Amino acid sequence: MSLNTFGHLFRVTTWGESHGPALGATVDGCPPGVPLAEGMIQQWLDRRKPGQNKYTTQRREPDEVKILSGVYERRTTGTPIQLMIENTDQRSKDYGDITQTFRPGHADITYHQKYGHRDPRGGGRSSARETAARVAAGGVAREVLKTLVPGIEIQGYMVQMGSLRADRDRFEMAEVERNPFWCPDAAMAAIWAEELDRLRKDGNSVGAVIEVVARGVPAGIGAPIYGKLDADLAAAMMSINAVKGVEIGAGMAAAELTGVENADEIRMGPQGPAFQSNHAGGILGGISTGQDLVCRFAVKPTSSILTPRRSVTMAGEENEVVTKGRHDPCVGIRAVPVGEAMMACVVLDHILLDRGQTGGVRGPIG
Amino acid sequence: MSLNTFGHLFRVTTWGESHGPALGATVDGCPPGVPLAEGMIQQWLDRRKPGQNKYTTQRREPDEVKILSGVYERRTTGTPIQLMIENTDQRSKDYGDITQTFRPGHADITYHQKYGHRDPRGGGRSSARETAARVAAGGVAREVLKTLVPGIEIQGYMVQMGSLRADRDRFEMAEVERNPFWCPDAAMAAIWAEELDRLRKDGNSVGAVIEVVARGVPAGIGAPIYGKLDADLAAAMMSINAVKGVEIGAGMAAAELTGVENADEIRMGPQGPAFQSNHAGGILGGISTGQDLVCRFAVKPTSSILTPRRSVTMAGEENEVVTKGRHDPCVGIRAVPVGEAMMACVVLDHILLDRGQTGGVRGPIG
Amino acid sequence: MSLNTFGHLFRVTTWGESHGPALGATVDGCPPGVPLAEGMIQQWLDRRKPGQNKYTTQRREPDEVKILSGVYERRTTGTPIQLMIENTDQRSKDYGDITQTFRPGHADITYHQKYGHRDPRGGGRSSARETAARVAAGGVAREVLKTLVPGIEIQGYMVQMGSLRADRDRFEMAEVERNPFWCPDAAMAAIWAEELDRLRKDGNSVGAVIEVVARGVPAGIGAPIYGKLDADLAAAMMSINAVKGVEIGAGMAAAELTGVENADEIRMGPQGPAFQSNHAGGILGGISTGQDLVCRFAVKPTSSILTPRRSVTMAGEENEVVTKGRHDPCVGIRAVPVGEAMMACVVLDHILLDRGQTGGVRGPIG
Amino acid sequence: MSLNTFGHLFRVTTWGESHGPALGATVDGCPPGVPLAEGMIQQWLDRRKPGQNKYTTQRREPDEVKILSGVYERRTTGTPIQLMIENTDQRSKDYGDITQTFRPGHADITYHQKYGHRDPRGGGRSSARETAARVAAGGVAREVLKTLVPGIEIQGYMVQMGSLRADRDRFEMAEVERNPFWCPDAAMAAIWAEELDRLRKDGNSVGAVIEVVARGVPAGIGAPIYGKLDADLAAAMMSINAVKGVEIGAGMAAAELTGVENADEIRMGPQGPAFQSNHAGGILGGISTGQDLVCRFAVKPTSSILTPRRSVTMAGEENEVVTKGRHDPCVGIRAVPVGEAMMACVVLDHILLDRGQTGGVRGPIG
Repeated sequence: MSLNTFGHLFRVTTWGESHGPALGATVDGCPPGVPLAEGMIQQWLDRRKPGQNKYTTQRREPDEVKILSGVYERRTTGTPIQLMIENTDQRSKDYGDITQTFRPGHADITYHQKYGHRDPRGGGRSSARETAARVAAGGVAREVLKTLVPGIEIQGYMVQMGSLRADRDRFEMAEVERNPFWCPDAAMAAIWAEELDRLRKDGNSVGAVIEVVARGVPAGIGAPIYGKLDADLAAAMMSINAVKGVEIGAGMAAAELTGVENADEIRMGPQGPAFQSNHAGGILGGISTGQDLVCRFAVKPTSSILTPRRSVTMAGEENEVVTKGRHDPCVGIRAVPVGEAMMACVVLDHILLDRGQTGGVRGPIG
Repeated sequence: MSLNTFGHLFRVTTWGESHGPALGATVDGCPPGVPLAEGMIQQWLDRRKPGQNKYTTQRREPDEVKILSGVYERRTTGTPIQLMIENTDQRSKDYGDITQTFRPGHADITYHQKYGHRDPRGGGRSSARETAARVAAGGVAREVLKTLVPGIEIQGYMVQMGSLRADRDRFEMAEVERNPFWCPDAAMAAIWAEELDRLRKDGNSVGAVIEVVARGVPAGIGAPIYGKLDADLAAAMMSINAVKGVEIGAGMAAAELTGVENADEIRMGPQGPAFQSNHAGGILGGISTGQDLVCRFAVKPTSSILTPRRSVTMAGEENEVVTKGRHDPCVGIRAVPVGEAMMACVVLDHILLDRGQTGGVRGPIG
Repeated sequence: MSLNTFGHLFRVTTWGESHGPALGATVDGCPPGVPLAEGMIQQWLDRRKPGQNKYTTQRREPDEVKILSGVYERRTTGTPIQLMIENTDQRSKDYGDITQTFRPGHADITYHQKYGHRDPRGGGRSSARETAARVAAGGVAREVLKTLVPGIEIQGYMVQMGSLRADRDRFEMAEVERNPFWCPDAAMAAIWAEELDRLRKDGNSVGAVIEVVARGVPAGIGAPIYGKLDADLAAAMMSINAVKGVEIGAGMAAAELTGVENADEIRMGPQGPAFQSNHAGGILGGISTGQDLVCRFAVKPTSSILTPRRSVTMAGEENEVVTKGRHDPCVGIRAVPVGEAMMACVVLDHILLDRGQTGGVRGPIG
Repeated sequence: MSLNTFGHLFRVTTWGESHGPALGATVDGCPPGVPLAEGMIQQWLDRRKPGQNKYTTQRREPDEVKILSGVYERRTTGTPIQLMIENTDQRSKDYGDITQTFRPGHADITYHQKYGHRDPRGGGRSSARETAARVAAGGVAREVLKTLVPGIEIQGYMVQMGSLRADRDRFEMAEVERNPFWCPDAAMAAIWAEELDRLRKDGNSVGAVIEVVARGVPAGIGAPIYGKLDADLAAAMMSINAVKGVEIGAGMAAAELTGVENADEIRMGPQGPAFQSNHAGGILGGISTGQDLVCRFAVKPTSSILTPRRSVTMAGEENEVVTKGRHDPCVGIRAVPVGEAMMACVVLDHILLDRGQTGGVRGPIG
C-alpha cells in the first residue's frame, strides 16, 4: 500500500533520485539462508548500465551496488536487505535550463503540479535511473528463485522498435545476448541499428515493445481476484517509466480471437496436463498453468529529445523546449533487464504467497 | 495486500461464488456524510445485468443489491459498507458435467491445481458473476466522486469486437446508451450484431476491446513509483475476468511513435496548461495531467462454448468438452460497466490518497 | 492497512453495526481444504452470546452465523469466506434518548467529531456487538490451526475484576468452563458474583483483566521488527472495545524485574531447549520461543451505566446522562472469547507468514 | 503489511544490523514542501545516543544521519526519504564468544530458530541499535507535524525504574531535560541514580516504565476498528525492543475502576467540550478526544548482563552465559526518545489518514 513499494511478502521499496547522493532498494521478506553477494546482483546491473553502446545514453555510471544489511557471511538472514547504488556522474549542469520549464511528454509537469516542490535534476525521482534499484532487487529475487524453483528461467528481449517487428519465425534465443537490442531476430537487429542511427541524427527517439518470459514456473501460483498473478504483473510492468501498455499471452490481440481459437486445448503429457497452445500466456483466472508466463509491454519514446517541442514555463509563459544532454534514443532497450527484474520479483512474491496460504499442496490430475 | 482486495484508502474486498447463497463487496474507507441508497447503486448493476438482450447470457438474475452496513439515514457513516447480492438463479444442473473436467481456456484447471478443492458450480469464484460486486462498489465510488469532484464523468464503451474496430471519426457518445454493445459508432454496432448472431449460431464466441474514459480528473492525482495511477489502473483492469491486455493513452501503439509525435505539446489555455494532444492518456509519471484519463483493455472470448474442445479430466483421461448452459457469446459487452466501476474506484482511491499526503495543495503554473 | 481489517495473510475485515440488518466478517487468505461448517463456528459464538446469565446484558440475540461464501461441500476453497450474523433484537427505542447526547466514557462523541454523521443506535459500529464478528472469524482460525498444528490450544480466562485478583495458586483450568466468569479460581468466582450483584444494584459497572494463553505454538513464529508477534497481539487486543492495556508475559511488571530475574534460563530437555521460566510470555524479539504465549489485557468498565454522569449535547448544552437499556455490568466477561479469537487469528496469520517466508525451516539446536 | 514497516500513509521501513556497515529508515508518503535538513533530525538522535552519561552503554557512536533522498533544497519532495546512519564503532570482538550460544532473555535463540542463519554481531537486527532508525524517522514526523498542527507537543519521560515509581505530585516537566533519566520528578531521579549504580556494580540490570504524551492532537483522529489510534500506538510501542506491556490512559488499572469513576465527565469549555478527567488517555473508540494522548510502556531489563545465567549452545550443550561488552544497565532510559518517535510517527500517520478519508471535516458540538 506504500506508494513506492511493490510486492506482498517479498516487498521492494525503491528510493532515490537521479542526481542525489544515492538510490537503492529496501527488500523485505526475503527468505533466509540464500547465498547472496554483491557480484550476483552486479551482473544484472551491468546489463542495464548506460553507455555500453552507442544506442544508449552516454551518461557513464558504474552503478555499483552495495549490500548494507540483511546478509551475513554471504547468506541472507531473512531481515531487510538494503541495496545502495551511489550516483557518481551528476552533471546537473546539463539539466539547468529545464528547471523552470516542462518537457512535453515528461513527468516534470505532473510532479510539479502534485508536489509543488520537486528535484528537477535529471528528472529527479521520475528518472529512468530509478530502474537500477529494481534491477538490483530483481537480482536478489533471482537468487532466491534459484534455490526455490531450480530450473526457472527468466528472459526478456525486444520484439518491436517503432513499427518494425521482429519475426518470430527467425527467433533464436541465443541471439538475445549478441546484439545491443536484446533481439532474438538477428536480421531485425541489424535493421533496427540503421533506423536508430537515423533517428538519433534527427534528434528524435522511438518506442519499443519488450517481451519477458518466465519458464519453469509451476502450476498453481497466483490468486484470485485482485492479487492475480497477471494483475500484479500488469501493475509491475506498468510501473516502469514510460510503459503505456501491458499484455499477457495473446494480449490485446485476444480481442480478435474466437472462443474456438483461444481455447488452449489440453492433452495428457508425460508430466501431466500438456497445453497445445499458449494464448493464455501461462495464466488462467490469475493462477499459473505451468506453461511459460508471457508478458509484453510497450515503452514510449524518450521525451527528452533534441527537436524543439512547444511547452510552457512554470511562470506560465509559452516556449519551445529542446532537451540537451545524453539521452537514450530508444529507452526501451534498457527496459529489457528491468522487465526481467520485475518478472523475477512478482513470480517470487507469488511463490512465497502460495506457500504461505496453501503450503504448496497441489490438486492432482491423473 | 489481501488477495481479494484492491485499493489503498478506498478499499474494496469482494467475496462470493457464482452459485453460493450470495456475493458482495466490503467497502472500507469510504468518506462519511455522502448520500447513498440502494437505488443509486442498483442503476449501475442494472446496466451489467445479464439477459437484457440476446447478446448476453440468458441467465436471469435480478442482481438486487442490499446495503447491510455503513449507511445510516441514507448517508455514509465512514464505517465499512457491506453490499450483498443474493444469488437466485442457481441452475447448477447446467454445470453438473463439468465438475470432473476442465474447460480449455477456463480457470477450472488452475483453481483445481492451486487449491485442490474448488466450487465448480458455474465457475465458482472465477465466474464473471463476481464482477457484479465490483459494479456495486463502483456505484459507491461514483456517489463519493460526485461530492468530491463535481463534474467528473466516467464512461466506458466498446471499440472493437473480433477484428472489427469502431471508427473514431463516427463516434457519438450519445450512441453508447442506444445499442446493446455500448458502442459510440452506431454503424459498427449494426455490423457487430450480425457478426455476433453468426458466431452464436456456430457455437462460438469472440473477444472485444473496451475503452474507459474519466473526464474532469484534476491534475496531480496519482503517485510514483509503484502506486502510480496507471499501475493501479492496469492492475484493476487486468484483474477483471478474461482481460489479457491493458493500455493507457496510446497504449501498445506508443511503441510505434517517435519522440516528436509522442510529445503532447503544451500551450497556455484559459484554465492553465492546455495539452495539444493526449498520447499520454492523461497520465505522466504515474500522475494525472488534468486531461481525460484514457484506458483500454482487451477481453478474450468466453471459454464456455458449444464447440467441442480437447481437454482432460481430473482423473487424467483425455476427453472433449462442450459447455452447455447460458453463456455470453461476447463477454466483453458486459465488461463495459465493470471497467467503468474499476475506473471509478481507482480514481477515487487516488483522490483520497492525494488528499491524505498533500492536502490537495498544487504547484501553480502561471 | 485497511482500517477495519487485521492480519497479513489470514486477513479479517469486520463490518456492521449494532442495530443494522446484519454484521459479519470477510475472511481472506484462508488455506484451502480445511473442514468447515457453521456449527464449528457457532460453538464459539455461543460462548460469547449475551443473556446467558445474569452477569451479562439481557439483550437476547441468537447470533446465528451463516457462511455465505468460500466453503464448498464443508471444506474451505481458499477464496474469501463471508460470515454473516443477522441482527434480530433491535430495540432501538432503548437508545432513542442518546442520539443527541454523548455518554461519558463512550465513543459516541469521537465518532460524531470524526465523521459528522453516525449511526447512534446501540453504539452503531462502536458497539461491543462488533466482537461477534471477531469470534466468528476466530472460529475459522481455530479450525485451520487444528489442521496445521495439531495439539495447539488457545484458552482465555478472567484473572481480575475490579481490584479483586484471582489467585494463581488456586488455578484449575477445568474451572474456567464452570463459572460465568471464565475464572480458573473457583473461590474468586464466587466472590466476584457477589461483587457484581452489588455493582449492578448500584447502577454501576467494573473493569476486568483477561488472560489468553496459546499452548503448543512452535518456536520460530513471528518476525522483526514491526510485524512482531507481540506487536500484532498488542494491536489485536487493543483493538477490542474498551481495552486500555495489553501485556505479554511479565507485562508491565517487567519493569520491576532485574536482569537476573528476568532471564528465562535454558536447559536441554527431551524435545530440545527447555526454558526454566516464562517471563517472556513465549516471545523474544517478536518471535515465539515454543513456550506458552501469554497475553493479558485490561477492559475498562462499561460506560453505559444507570448512574447519572455529566455530559453535553450535540447542541452544546450541558446535561446529565443516564443510560437505560440492557448493559453488561462487567463487559470484560464477554471479552474472554473475543480475546481467544484474536489470539487464534494472530497466531494462524503468523504461522502462514512464517511458512511463506521460510518454508517452515528451523535452525536446529543440538 | 511488510514485516519491517509500520504506518499506513506515513510509512517507515527500517533496515540494518548493529554491526553491519549502516542502518537506516526508508520513509515513504511524507507530505511535500516541508522544511527538512539533517540537523533537524540529528537533534533527536543526539538525545538517544549512547555514551552520554554513565547510565547508558559506553559504546560510542556518532549516530550521524545522512539524508540520501526525498529532500531537495532543504524541503521534502513527497518522494521516499532515505535516512542512513553509518556504524562506526563495531568492536565485534566483544561479541565473539556469544555466536555459538544464546543469552537467556535475548532474541538470539528465536532468530536462530526462525531463520537458521543470523548475524550474531551485537544482536544483529534485534539490537537496540535499530531504534536509532526509528528516532530518525520520528524526527521527520515531528517536522511535518509542526507544519500541519502547530502547537502539537510530544514528550516522553521515565516514570518508574524497578519498583521505584516517580511521584506525580512532584512532576515538573522542565525537570525532564535536567537529569539523565528524563524524569519529571527530580527527587526520584536522584534515588534512581543510586539504585542504578548499585545494580551496575552487581552486574545486573533493571526494567522501567516510560510515559509518552502528545499534547494538542485535535479531536477526530484515528479510526475504528483495527486501525484504531490506540491499536496502532500499542503495536508501535510493543514493537520497540524489550517492551512487554503497553497502556493507554488508565491502562491496566482501568480494570480496577468502576463505570462511575471511569466516565470522563464533559462540560462545555471555551473551545468546546471539556473533559473533566482523562482516564481514556485521549482516545475513545480508537479516535482522539482532543485531550492529551497518554501512552505508557514497560521495558524489561537488559538481558546482556555480567551475572552468569544458565543457557545452552547451538550444539545443544548446557552452559552458563556472561555477556561482556558495554551494555545499558537500564535500557529503558534510552527508550524515552524512541517512544517519542513512535508517537510522532503514529499521530502523523493518522492525521494524514483522517485527512484522506474525511478531508478534515468535523462534526460540530455546540
